[in-house]
Amino acid sequence: MESLNVKPYKKSDQHSYVFGAYSVIRLIREKPEIIRGVLIHSKYGDIPSLIRLCESVNLPYLISDKTINRLSNKENIYVIGIFNKYKSIIHAAQPHIVLIHPRDMGNLGTIIRTADGFNIKNIAIIGPAADIFNPKTIRASMGSLFSVKFQYFDSFLDYQAKFSSHELYPFMLKGALPLEERVRDSSFLFSLIFGNESSGLPDEFSQIGKPTKIPQSLTLDSLNLGVAVGVATYGFAFHHNLIK
Amino acid sequence: MESLNVKPYKKSDQHSYVFGAYSVIRLIREKPEIIRGVLIHSKYGDIPSLIRLCESVNLPYLISDKTINRLSNKENIYVIGIFNKYKSIIHAAQPHIVLIHPRDMGNLGTIIRTADGFNIKNIAIIGPAADIFNPKTIRASMGSLFSVKFQYFDSFLDYQAKFSSHELYPFMLKGALPLEERVRDSSFLFSLIFGNESSGLPDEFSQIGKPTKIPQSLTLDSLNLGVAVGVATYGFAFHHNLIK
Repeated sequence: MESLNVKPYKKSDQHSYVFGAYSVIRLIREKPEIIRGVLIHSKYGDIPSLIRLCESVNLPYLISDKTINRLSNKENIYVIGIFNKYKSIIHAAQPHIVLIHPRDMGNLGTIIRTADGFNIKNIAIIGPAADIFNPKTIRASMGSLFSVKFQYFDSFLDYQAKFSSHELYPFMLKGALPLEERVRDSSFLFSLIFGNESSGLPDEFSQIGKPTKIPQSLTLDSLNLGVAVGVATYGFAFHHNLIK
Repeated sequence: MESLNVKPYKKSDQHSYVFGAYSVIRLIREKPEIIRGVLIHSKYGDIPSLIRLCESVNLPYLISDKTINRLSNKENIYVIGIFNKYKSIIHAAQPHIVLIHPRDMGNLGTIIRTADGFNIKNIAIIGPAADIFNPKTIRASMGSLFSVKFQYFDSFLDYQAKFSSHELYPFMLKGALPLEERVRDSSFLFSLIFGNESSGLPDEFSQIGKPTKIPQSLTLDSLNLGVAVGVATYGFAFHHNLIK
């Protein structure tokens, strides 16, 4: 474990870091095959249990405050997992969330956590977009990244061509019908499509599929992206009995 | 304007700052009586219109890149408004959002933006809590702070005593009925109550009013607070025709 290369994360790295005991334990349980090792701070509250968990899956660990501090950048982090990045593919027979050029890692992570929470666990990301493996994204996802499937596409057309059976629901205000109406008539194979934080979806999406709006005050410029995805995803998931 | 005291924000200040042209223009339009002045960066895209708006309400302005940079802390901010903090009181005849010890300014701001968007514009905050006038909160609210009413209370009991006609809906998983059921039976004078980011509501809230849960995957520890408030607020607002 001492020989591990523990420099701050770079996008080009083949590995990444997951911060916080809750998320590290989730990763060990959900994807034991990708985790390389666990760093533990001497102030962590339950070191013996964590060591037992590591040993039960033959996972190397290192108690090193210095290494933790170097990676965690001033935050109060007591456990860090190091894992190999992996390839993920979304499922053609399940509903999707489609994010067009999401830029903010915090928003992307929150959306992943929401997708996990509402059981719509396939996320298509149209690039260029935020790095899903950045520790900031994973942190905002509270470890939900390891419970969802995701796939990057170069363009929306690529996505659309590959999943031509999905009903497309671009979320926008222009030319759109309200969420409740759309949900009521929807079939199970849906794609909920969202633009990015600053500009939303381009106007041409109003010509694609079934444009949908979340009823809201007209005085508002827009909802926060994470909130919009939450409300929309909840509406579809509840209607299709994905959550109860 | 040159004589204005433009140091980085402190909680004890009598004034605060609002960042970004969109929010500054909102403040000028919605609360012209509290704004003291506007700082403009020479790179701002439409200086003449902003100056005309300032002059139309006799508002002093200063074009000073140095002042902007000192306050904005590396972000790309081109317009800053300086305003006097003000007192706000929530309305007894309207529905409320009640936040118990919210700690994160970004979350608080996002919740204010959501409250504005879904027309539930009265927010009770039980202290200790994040500072609603911190520029970070206002920034996350996208200027919606100026369109809602808010009031701090020392304890939930204080709040409850003052608004005894409100139906109380604590959002939690324990002993709760699902959102849709609660919404269906709700009257207009409702209070939607949320715990903070890390610990949610204490168990004793399951004995108060009508505990309500947002259906979600059992594998998830919890939803992001801003997302939970969004889904809950939307459900009540839509049912009571506050949005369309």
